[in-house]
Amino acid sequence: MDVVGSSADKNFNYIPKGFTIPEDADYFHITTNNTIFGTEIHEDYDSPVPMIADMSSDIFARPVDISKYGIIYGGAQKNLGPAGATFVIIRDDILGKVERHIPTMLDYKTHIDKESMFNTPPCLPIYACLETLRWLKKLGGVKVMQKMNQEKAALLYDEIDRNALFVGTAEKDSRSLMNICFVMNDKYQDLEKEFLEFATSKGMVGIKGHRSVGGFRASTYNAMPKESVEALIGVMQEFEKKHA
Amino acid sequence: MDVVGSSADKNFNYIPKGFTIPEDADYFHITTNNTIFGTEIHEDYDSPVPMIADMSSDIFARPVDISKYGIIYGGAQKNLGPAGATFVIIRDDILGKVERHIPTMLDYKTHIDKESMFNTPPCLPIYACLETLRWLKKLGGVKVMQKMNQEKAALLYDEIDRNALFVGTAEKDSRSLMNICFVMNDKYQDLEKEFLEFATSKGMVGIKGHRSVGGFRASTYNAMPKESVEALIGVMQEFEKKHA
Repeated sequence: MDVVGSSADKNFNYIPKGFTIPEDADYFHITTNNTIFGTEIHEDYDSPVPMIADMSSDIFARPVDISKYGIIYGGAQKNLGPAGATFVIIRDDILGKVERHIPTMLDYKTHIDKESMFNTPPCLPIYACLETLRWLKKLGGVKVMQKMNQEKAALLYDEIDRNALFVGTAEKDSRSLMNICFVMNDKYQDLEKEFLEFATSKGMVGIKGHRSVGGFRASTYNAMPKESVEALIGVMQEFEKKHA
Repeated sequence: MDVVGSSADKNFNYIPKGFTIPEDADYFHITTNNTIFGTEIHEDYDSPVPMIADMSSDIFARPVDISKYGIIYGGAQKNLGPAGATFVIIRDDILGKVERHIPTMLDYKTHIDKESMFNTPPCLPIYACLETLRWLKKLGGVKVMQKMNQEKAALLYDEIDRNALFVGTAEKDSRSLMNICFVMNDKYQDLEKEFLEFATSKGMVGIKGHRSVGGFRASTYNAMPKESVEALIGVMQEFEKKHA
């Protein structure tokens, strides 16, 4: 495995740019959204070799030019449905190129040949995916969803940038629309625990950041309404008044 | 792979007996209940080598001496919960004996080390399993469940044996308590389609037998109440009156 781009130098707070994908590589793999560090690839790269993308955490969040990808795959549990279902979008010509033995269950060919019914499928999670897709379609599809996600994220990032107590962790052009990561500003480091407790008491759950980043993380997946983002902003402003 | 016992000679209508498990085998594999042919192993074999059992379709239907097994595994979707969850009961000393490379996701060690949280688990199916187990415990556990299953199966097999129109496909001592398979008696072969339509019109769904056996299959898994079995018997008796 060759790493063609990395932001390890800055604790993964930006999406690498200007990297070159080797033309003799078998494939180029990306994960389009980083849930821990709150960064996201907002474009569909041009790759000289088949591009394989893990889109677990931002599938259906924006229109994607699937013709640029060899494989798009992911777990359903962020924007598609409950945990237990997975999705794979695969270009026909990607198949049949592996010489070594692949266990039956891990071979995409097995599932394609049996039309995803090789094993008893997880009916309940799949049904929930269907209902989610119907809801998405009714709203106007991924274009409308993208607009909604941009609006939600803009509201929260604007507050983070405005509010003196907080600072965003990801570089601005790499900011994720799905996972919005922020920490206390240097001056207010000792308020981290207090804000977490304050926010929790106001009904904000699950906003503790991943241990490798610290601080806070607001996940604004497709299903999160604008009203919930506004509620968090209200809590941030209330906390600001107490301490500014 | 060596097959130590088979009932292929009689279209799999009995559980083989008197077979010998080679003492130099790596393991001995059984599937305790055959959903297609309606046969079931009603005992826990003594095996000189680790015994591996697929109990997908009759786990929790009777008390099992798990100390006799190296691995018990299965899909949840018969007696445990909805499709999407699987279970594995494994004896510690079974692990770590395979030399060849096993893909991370297929290696039991991966899931044991991470306490079944290596990947995002299918929460909804797992929660339904929890509720099923609570229900089972409240009823009195697997001993009570076995008694209920025996009663349900006895009712239906008695009717099959009594009713001149029908005949069971599995040999009596191999009959499954989970999947009760029967066909029209020789004399009444031409009534098969009519009975299926008659039964369907009376609300009996899913009783068409598997294509490799034909006829009918009533699945009487743990969740199937006695009243439903009695309803099917009522339909069989009503059909008998029309044609006897």
